[in-house]
Amino acid sequence: MNEIIQLLQNHRSIRKFTDQAVTVEQLKDILVSAQAASTSSNMQAYSVIHVSDSELKSQLAAFAGNQNYVSECPVFLVWCADLQRYSQASHQHADTPISGNAENFIIATVDAALAAQNAAIAAESLGLGVVYIGGLRNKPAEVSQLLGLPQLVYPIFGMCIGVPDQEPLQRPRLPLEAVYHENRYTDNEEAVRQYDETIRDYMNVRTGGKVDTTWSKEMAGKALRPREHMKAFLNSQGFGEV
Amino acid sequence: MNEIIQLLQNHRSIRKFTDQAVTVEQLKDILVSAQAASTSSNMQAYSVIHVSDSELKSQLAAFAGNQNYVSECPVFLVWCADLQRYSQASHQHADTPISGNAENFIIATVDAALAAQNAAIAAESLGLGVVYIGGLRNKPAEVSQLLGLPQLVYPIFGMCIGVPDQEPLQRPRLPLEAVYHENRYTDNEEAVRQYDETIRDYMNVRTGGKVDTTWSKEMAGKALRPREHMKAFLNSQGFGEV
Repeated sequence: MNEIIQLLQNHRSIRKFTDQAVTVEQLKDILVSAQAASTSSNMQAYSVIHVSDSELKSQLAAFAGNQNYVSECPVFLVWCADLQRYSQASHQHADTPISGNAENFIIATVDAALAAQNAAIAAESLGLGVVYIGGLRNKPAEVSQLLGLPQLVYPIFGMCIGVPDQEPLQRPRLPLEAVYHENRYTDNEEAVRQYDETIRDYMNVRTGGKVDTTWSKEMAGKALRPREHMKAFLNSQGFGEV
Repeated sequence: MNEIIQLLQNHRSIRKFTDQAVTVEQLKDILVSAQAASTSSNMQAYSVIHVSDSELKSQLAAFAGNQNYVSECPVFLVWCADLQRYSQASHQHADTPISGNAENFIIATVDAALAAQNAAIAAESLGLGVVYIGGLRNKPAEVSQLLGLPQLVYPIFGMCIGVPDQEPLQRPRLPLEAVYHENRYTDNEEAVRQYDETIRDYMNVRTGGKVDTTWSKEMAGKALRPREHMKAFLNSQGFGEV
């Protein structure tokens, strides 16, 4: 197994960082690596906002559900799907309206995610740790207003980056055969049952026996928190058909 | 610059492959690396379908707009957003309906994209080349039927993997300052104007002077092909509010 595959397979989210700064050069390596990711028809339909202002970081931490590492991490990035640049460029040549239709929504969301994942790997290769912050979608309108996001742009997730000050256990993933199919989609309920026990053991170890849960129980709990506000928010940002 | 950042920044899409097979061990390294990517609340809301059957590959190549490398590549993967496994797991414990609402749509789309990008990097680290195939979204209903995708699953993109049989030029990206913002979103029209000239030069070299275009012209052309069918397709797959 080569060094890169080792790095990829050794990933764990880091939520506690030392005071050590991320250097300007490191950040540039991270961002240029992000830009090198694949992008649909070279649209590059994303933006990344580096939030360095401590007051803004505190507000974002609150919006994300009081996740203190958002305000305390050395570098906080907000990754956005962005059809605004595409729209402006296109309108230099034609009046064709750029809609935030489902297809364009997918393009921009995927472009941002691919770039962000490259950033995460570049950061980890530099000895830094990262965690994605989906909690920004608790208050997407407030986040958008705070960062001045125009129409056709929305914040997908944040990302904390810094020097790790913890060594968390690695959370086991589903058995490969649960997510992998050959030629045709097939349910694999046995793999999920097996994983339920894996997660029970993992949570038992991680919490010193305090939490007894399984993956499917966690998923049932997650289903109670559906962030139903996202549709109205996306509509208000010009993703009219999402 | 370390080896991993060099690999990330050296990416180019590969559309021509030698006959050399991708080994079972290589494919496993790629897929396990994909699984190690971050995932929202450990939902792992994606599936990957390895299409090894040559008849299926031919049909997918046709659906994708007659992209022959889809049928000719040694390994073709279809990456899907998948809320079906989440739904089944949750329903073991509660009746809470799992909707394909905008939030869950984002979670599943992003989870699949992060996993796929890890797969792409793992493949490149093994000396393989990859290209994403967004063209599957030309005929998403046909792709879904062919692969037996159930409700709450949709194909986002395909991915060809194999030993490169070409060394394409690397397409330049937007200037970093066009996609990067500090603390607040800011338009950077000058960076786009500059990039228009970069792309003009690049296309001139790549086509031996035959194509005179700019990035913004390409974007205006792209706007004429909006894949408006995606919304109705997604609705039919149970992404009811997308």
